[in-house]
Amino acid sequence: MKKILLCELNMSEGTDEEIIAQATEALRGTPGVTVMDIDSDRDHNRSVFTWIGEPEDVLAGAMNLTKVAVERIDMAVHKGSHPRQGVVDVAPFVPVRGVEKEEALEIARRYGKFLGSLGVPVFYYEDAATKPERQNLVDIRKGQYEALSEKMKDEFWRPDEGPFAFNAKSGATVTGVRFPLIAFNVNLRTNDLKVGQEIAKRMRFSSGGLRYCRGIALPLEEKGMVQVSMNLTNYEKTPIPVVFELVKALADSYGVGIAETELVGPVPLEALREVVRHTLRVREFSMEQVIETHLLD
Amino acid sequence: MKKILLCELNMSEGTDEEIIAQATEALRGTPGVTVMDIDSDRDHNRSVFTWIGEPEDVLAGAMNLTKVAVERIDMAVHKGSHPRQGVVDVAPFVPVRGVEKEEALEIARRYGKFLGSLGVPVFYYEDAATKPERQNLVDIRKGQYEALSEKMKDEFWRPDEGPFAFNAKSGATVTGVRFPLIAFNVNLRTNDLKVGQEIAKRMRFSSGGLRYCRGIALPLEEKGMVQVSMNLTNYEKTPIPVVFELVKALADSYGVGIAETELVGPVPLEALREVVRHTLRVREFSMEQVIETHLLD
Repeated sequence: MKKILLCELNMSEGTDEEIIAQATEALRGTPGVTVMDIDSDRDHNRSVFTWIGEPEDVLAGAMNLTKVAVERIDMAVHKGSHPRQGVVDVAPFVPVRGVEKEEALEIARRYGKFLGSLGVPVFYYEDAATKPERQNLVDIRKGQYEALSEKMKDEFWRPDEGPFAFNAKSGATVTGVRFPLIAFNVNLRTNDLKVGQEIAKRMRFSSGGLRYCRGIALPLEEKGMVQVSMNLTNYEKTPIPVVFELVKALADSYGVGIAETELVGPVPLEALREVVRHTLRVREFSMEQVIETHLLD
Repeated sequence: MKKILLCELNMSEGTDEEIIAQATEALRGTPGVTVMDIDSDRDHNRSVFTWIGEPEDVLAGAMNLTKVAVERIDMAVHKGSHPRQGVVDVAPFVPVRGVEKEEALEIARRYGKFLGSLGVPVFYYEDAATKPERQNLVDIRKGQYEALSEKMKDEFWRPDEGPFAFNAKSGATVTGVRFPLIAFNVNLRTNDLKVGQEIAKRMRFSSGGLRYCRGIALPLEEKGMVQVSMNLTNYEKTPIPVVFELVKALADSYGVGIAETELVGPVPLEALREVVRHTLRVREFSMEQVIETHLLD
């Protein structure tokens, strides 16, 4: 069975068609790389490249794309509405299938060293973080590119790779390893935001809920509904159907039904297996039974 | 997106290791063929080969395997506990992904003509049947190999391909096209077989149930349960979760719970999509969201 690693590289250029095309070409030209999605946003002035493949190929793709980004993009003149601090702003590596965390960490570190060799300061985050204050992207990126020159004078911000010095052209990059994140939204048959907020509070880890669940409530004005919008950060330990059952039970306790749900963005096949096992009560169900998986070997 | 066709060829040899190895080699040596399973049964004296690939490759695999079977196996001396009438007894082609029925029918007919050219009488069945009496394998195979010499004198049994004459060495072959069949068993928390039989009766098409559902009830002595054992012959029109909901409601009406279920054998990814959509209430869910499908393109 082939191993599958995913990389989701956020590049700080979303308007210059030529640079985006050159970066795309560098990525697509890498043997063994399957590009899943390229999403450029002009307002954010940012492009998100998502690709998969065997770990070594995924790393090669990241390096090829990064060479173009570092050469062509200048952070000193970059403007965009999305928070950012480097030409390659953030590049998580995500184990999808058959890749152990340790192997993904090694790939992320080799990518970090590569960026360092190009003169770009690198911070490791999530599962690759070297201290607790570097686990969250938001903490590392606080103040964005504009704060970097000051931060590079503070020992606390000594980078994990690359020079301990401000790189005006390339900024700094955050890379590391995280588990596949599943975005799961549940739309409730109510317009009472407080019900949604109570449910989100019970669901999320930070206020006593499920270990790998984050959640907030949002009003959906047009639908006249309230949405409990969740991120599941470990679908093996906090599976989708368990989350669904708990939301359903909590909604029921408020006399509210679930109108519909949304699975947003990519989902590993393994996460669906748990849905089938739980909801149909199939105690034994092997992914080998899914005909298409035989073509992945 | 690559097209996927599946072939499940039943060969009348399950004991002679050399013949089985030679047939396996012929199949595996066919470019573009992915072998999913080879299951030889000594009591049945029969081997079932299951493979997938693009339609042309799957056909080439069937031809290569068939050459070995027709050359090496002699039905005149074949003994086995499973009903059979030919060296290649039955070989259905099953559209799994992106293959229209018409395209699969063309493949089955080319395979039939190939067998005919080897001197083997061929009957088309299921979606390839040329008359209603040839839709079911059981009807075509009635009397087995031993009845063939008589049948080959009766105009009613004029074959669809090949000679209208008894082939003592190769017997006759049934081939055609069928939709993927899903074997779905539901184990009830009761040992009252009548409850299972009532539920099976309500479920199956033949007694007024769901259009693409067959079903019987069986006692599971060891577990002290009763099983409703079903075959779903069109998972698009009679989806697994709909079947599950109806069994659950019927069981509930007898005051009986569902202990567990079984999905037996291969299942197309598309069938699981409907499980996810229905049970999680995800109204929009594209197979493109499943990360692994990008490697099938």
